[in-house]
Amino acid sequence: MFDEILPDLIQKNDTKAVFLVADGVGGTTVNGRTELDAAKTPNLDALASKSSLGLHYPVGYGLTPGSGPGHLGLFGYDPIKCQIGRGILEALGSGMTVRRGDLAVRGNFATIENGLITDRRAGRIPTEKCIELVAEIRENIADIDGIEFDIKAARDYRFAVVFHDASLKDGVDDADPQQTGLPPLPAKAKHPDSEKSAAIINRFIDEVTRVLADERPANTCLMRGAANSPDISPFEEKYGMSAQGIAVYPMYKGLAKLVGMEVPDGLQTLEEEIERLHATFADFDFHFLHFKYTDSAGEDGDFDRKVAMIEKFDAALPSILELEPDVVVITGDHSTPSSLKLHSWHPVPVLLHGKFAFEDDAKRFTERDAANFGILGHIPAQAIMMNILANCGRLAKFGA
Amino acid sequence: MFDEILPDLIQKNDTKAVFLVADGVGGTTVNGRTELDAAKTPNLDALASKSSLGLHYPVGYGLTPGSGPGHLGLFGYDPIKCQIGRGILEALGSGMTVRRGDLAVRGNFATIENGLITDRRAGRIPTEKCIELVAEIRENIADIDGIEFDIKAARDYRFAVVFHDASLKDGVDDADPQQTGLPPLPAKAKHPDSEKSAAIINRFIDEVTRVLADERPANTCLMRGAANSPDISPFEEKYGMSAQGIAVYPMYKGLAKLVGMEVPDGLQTLEEEIERLHATFADFDFHFLHFKYTDSAGEDGDFDRKVAMIEKFDAALPSILELEPDVVVITGDHSTPSSLKLHSWHPVPVLLHGKFAFEDDAKRFTERDAANFGILGHIPAQAIMMNILANCGRLAKFGA
Repeated sequence: MFDEILPDLIQKNDTKAVFLVADGVGGTTVNGRTELDAAKTPNLDALASKSSLGLHYPVGYGLTPGSGPGHLGLFGYDPIKCQIGRGILEALGSGMTVRRGDLAVRGNFATIENGLITDRRAGRIPTEKCIELVAEIRENIADIDGIEFDIKAARDYRFAVVFHDASLKDGVDDADPQQTGLPPLPAKAKHPDSEKSAAIINRFIDEVTRVLADERPANTCLMRGAANSPDISPFEEKYGMSAQGIAVYPMYKGLAKLVGMEVPDGLQTLEEEIERLHATFADFDFHFLHFKYTDSAGEDGDFDRKVAMIEKFDAALPSILELEPDVVVITGDHSTPSSLKLHSWHPVPVLLHGKFAFEDDAKRFTERDAANFGILGHIPAQAIMMNILANCGRLAKFGA
Repeated sequence: MFDEILPDLIQKNDTKAVFLVADGVGGTTVNGRTELDAAKTPNLDALASKSSLGLHYPVGYGLTPGSGPGHLGLFGYDPIKCQIGRGILEALGSGMTVRRGDLAVRGNFATIENGLITDRRAGRIPTEKCIELVAEIRENIADIDGIEFDIKAARDYRFAVVFHDASLKDGVDDADPQQTGLPPLPAKAKHPDSEKSAAIINRFIDEVTRVLADERPANTCLMRGAANSPDISPFEEKYGMSAQGIAVYPMYKGLAKLVGMEVPDGLQTLEEEIERLHATFADFDFHFLHFKYTDSAGEDGDFDRKVAMIEKFDAALPSILELEPDVVVITGDHSTPSSLKLHSWHPVPVLLHGKFAFEDDAKRFTERDAANFGILGHIPAQAIMMNILANCGRLAKFGA
């Protein structure tokens, strides 16, 4: 947002911002109440009473975002311009690191017999077997024609591969005949720029088939969704703030890494996330902290558990606020109403607290109070980062 | 809106949406109250209490839309990119059908004597005479150099012509000397692409002048506002919803046809419109129903009559709701404050009702309640269609 003028406006200081994302926290009404309406949230209420509230549209009116576009918007990137391909998402979700210029591809283990694909999912082998096969591949294939790659098992028969070579461009048709009883379909370039990528993917399939020759049922692989990492200017370069992403789940760690944040490994609980925040508060200007379970409960259609998860999040708030960051923002990457059991398009409440933030009449962190009293209004997700920068005193005046 | 990603997101199901447009329903305050504030609307109130409210800007901040851009915005088209030329509007307003690739031109009957235009409006002949002359032209001119055309009388001395030939491009100066006492001015092409159009228009004028040689005062015509139909992707193609437009007045029927909706003929009253809605509810996914008289009363500057028309609209609501559409939207194409006696730029209240719509704190369908409590916020008109699609479950998730 405002990319053409932002570089000239960014100024550094020693302020610190904490960006708390309760995944899928927004909802829609069930018998007139959302999960946020129903939750007992004394700490959020107290903070809301002395903060600015608003509602954000993650990608745009009516659009339901996946986790990728949802978070890119929160980090201030245009989720429509910076689309994240399937291969990249599989790699991120598998906990792999994806950097600028990488090419990521999703893989299925499959069965080939007498030159024909007889099972596109290799009998749906379990994840443990998939991990074993990936280790076998890793041991036996150092590189593909000199190009280094990472490979990681995902769930069941699926895995992801990331090729580290900036000359590999996406635009490759899937190497997947889509039906059984057909010979394997080689990857085909959609344009001359991606011919090298197609060749490397085909060499990879050949090598895997060679290594797995004695395996059954997984003795080959199909490769789909080849995608370059999106062309994203790193967070610190864009905003002048060093940043870390504190998250438990691979997808969110991966998204934070994708925009260039430091991401610690090995965290399992909200308590551990907050411990990490305390331990490293001095080390970064910007701390993104992700809380997953509001979304999980919404996706399960469990109103009461989503309420309980909001209350758990509320209970953790004082230990975060005692760090006294200059700016605290609380929001979600999208709504996940338990009545829908899915991500949704509904606008998401956002709370902004800081020394110079307007104390509007909102008294609770709810969709309703944000709509009724929010000084921030209805804003695109990308406007949140602009507000953080401003409230941190990190944006110079535009024009004299 | 979001045209670059929409085709990938549209998914079909069997939901039904009803889009009720009370023309010019929004207002501005007179002694602190708008017409919507003053009206007794028990049915709208009841619906508003369990719906999402908001305010939409038809074209943009401060812009007063004509009926064309007003409705295009409601249908989700960009009214600035899809401009509707004068010739097209005259044709639509005259009840003609305009299709992609057509060229429409407005005509005036005029008087020519000794090679000079002596009256640009042929003595303002009455509509009945105009109809007679148009019939005479129709009888005597089958086509223009092989190009088929429709012609229809408008009001007084005015008529419209639609040429059906996709090779006719607009960009033609008016064939109108603008003053009397001058010779007729032939249509001139503004660029090489429109030379054929200019030639055809000039041939048409010659033919009309030949046919009307013995008429007085209308013995020739001036031709203005040549325009191609805007390049609009048909509604069903864009949204995957079959659609009908139920309206009484030619202009709104024409606008609905322009975006590819089915449009029944012969309806005269709101009751007949609702009868048609009932009779054909199963036949379409999307039903646009237009109510004219809120606008007419506003244009007449009659506050009380506009209140009465809103109450008439309110009284009709239960018979529409008994169809139990999945999504109901109620709004106007623009505001027509009776204090202004004109269309205006004021934001227009919009109500969205559906199973997954947020029940916000708005209790009435008024500008005021929408501003105070509306969860939808202030939105561009095009966002309404996005919200309809989302609430119908017809938009897939964007990104994973």
